[in-house]
Amino acid sequence: MSGKEFHHTVHIYYEDTDHSGFVYHANYLKFFERGREHAIGRDVLSNLWHDKGMGFVVYRMDIEFKDKVKFGETVDVRSTFTLENRFRMICHQSVWREGAEKPAVVAEIELLCLNKDEKLISIPPEVLDLA
Amino acid sequence: MSGKEFHHTVHIYYEDTDHSGFVYHANYLKFFERGREHAIGRDVLSNLWHDKGMGFVVYRMDIEFKDKVKFGETVDVRSTFTLENRFRMICHQSVWREGAEKPAVVAEIELLCLNKDEKLISIPPEVLDLA
Amino acid sequence: MSGKEFHHTVHIYYEDTDHSGFVYHANYLKFFERGREHAIGRDVLSNLWHDKGMGFVVYRMDIEFKDKVKFGETVDVRSTFTLENRFRMICHQSVWREGAEKPAVVAEIELLCLNKDEKLISIPPEVLDLA
Amino acid sequence: MSGKEFHHTVHIYYEDTDHSGFVYHANYLKFFERGREHAIGRDVLSNLWHDKGMGFVVYRMDIEFKDKVKFGETVDVRSTFTLENRFRMICHQSVWREGAEKPAVVAEIELLCLNKDEKLISIPPEVLDLA
Repeated sequence: MSGKEFHHTVHIYYEDTDHSGFVYHANYLKFFERGREHAIGRDVLSNLWHDKGMGFVVYRMDIEFKDKVKFGETVDVRSTFTLENRFRMICHQSVWREGAEKPAVVAEIELLCLNKDEKLISIPPEVLDLA
Repeated sequence: MSGKEFHHTVHIYYEDTDHSGFVYHANYLKFFERGREHAIGRDVLSNLWHDKGMGFVVYRMDIEFKDKVKFGETVDVRSTFTLENRFRMICHQSVWREGAEKPAVVAEIELLCLNKDEKLISIPPEVLDLA
Repeated sequence: MSGKEFHHTVHIYYEDTDHSGFVYHANYLKFFERGREHAIGRDVLSNLWHDKGMGFVVYRMDIEFKDKVKFGETVDVRSTFTLENRFRMICHQSVWREGAEKPAVVAEIELLCLNKDEKLISIPPEVLDLA
Repeated sequence: MSGKEFHHTVHIYYEDTDHSGFVYHANYLKFFERGREHAIGRDVLSNLWHDKGMGFVVYRMDIEFKDKVKFGETVDVRSTFTLENRFRMICHQSVWREGAEKPAVVAEIELLCLNKDEKLISIPPEVLDLA
């Protein structure tokens, strides 16, 4: 049903952690966004933005934090995409610690596409083959 | 059913925005966390952490991004708490732009409390009267 | 020689710390920038940006990190301004822990003003009385 | 005099930019820190921290911001190290845009090493061959 699974490697640096000793929860959203950018293609996204003023926005997300990740670890961000309708794409993402049998963080992220006037537009054809 | 509503003011600085011109979506999680820290009490949280090694963790969150916030704006973060059971507290939070009739961002955030060995413990009595 | 000293209070949240247990060094730059925004006036900055496309940029900074700040602390960001010439303003900033006799962090920050075409322009009269 | 030059690639994501359309100035400190971590070795740093409670701290930095970097770009972070004395290491770092003849950002960063009691210790032998 969903398309290809994309993998993106993230190294955990000082900047990603908080004083509890683990990754600060909001930073997983950055990792997910990096994973989506690489899956969609950074050139595609950059061209859509700089040439047409078009960009993706997160409309809704549901996240579960099941395990913690420490400084110095390397994680795998996995992403698959489902096209709900021509305006709405769902991205299923998870963060995996090395050797883990279950994901540390799991998210379902709903994306819309807006033009430069902040109007909803249909998902551009450049990215349709992800789902 | 839920307890008191807490308000916390957040100013939107350069650091909070991204190149789209609006607040970067992951940063709302920071604003929500600041709101929770002030509601629970920064002294209470700091003492729980530094004296007992106890801290709250976000286990699940569901967020809807309904409107965008720009550089230079001031927003109101609203928080109410519900105690689901003695281990789990739900925090209902929203971000309001000045003069808005609807929230810009709405979240339901599930919190657990862990001790220094990362074991689940019951919500400490110091914070029980929030809900 | 320099003008008025401005004070801005910053609370240290989870987001500000790293796994060492203290504030992540890059985050002091955010605190300094918040201090400058409040000193210059957030309305002034927002109007310069949204009406005229003008904004300040940091051209150079020299920072010394002398003490560490922990989660739960509240610090005072102090700022004074010196106008070097009509294009260049120096902001002298420091972060003070509560009750401290010496600053935790000290910085000298050189600011320029750019228009919407990224061209250097003279410091706008709205902010000249800071120095 | 200085040792080997290390290179580390950084992709510029939404999270790195601000509403001016370019990288937020404080984020270059993150890029520099990632460059240092890869140069020193993430395993080395992680072991020093988790096994011995030892870590590097930035004591002083001097940075010049000469050019701006946009969303979608990929930059090269270059690092060389000089050992000033057995307690103090200087890291010379710069950020290079693709195809650029001059660096966008240049920094000189002074590093110390602290043990778990926050006492100054000599630079560990594991990292001495960087300089």
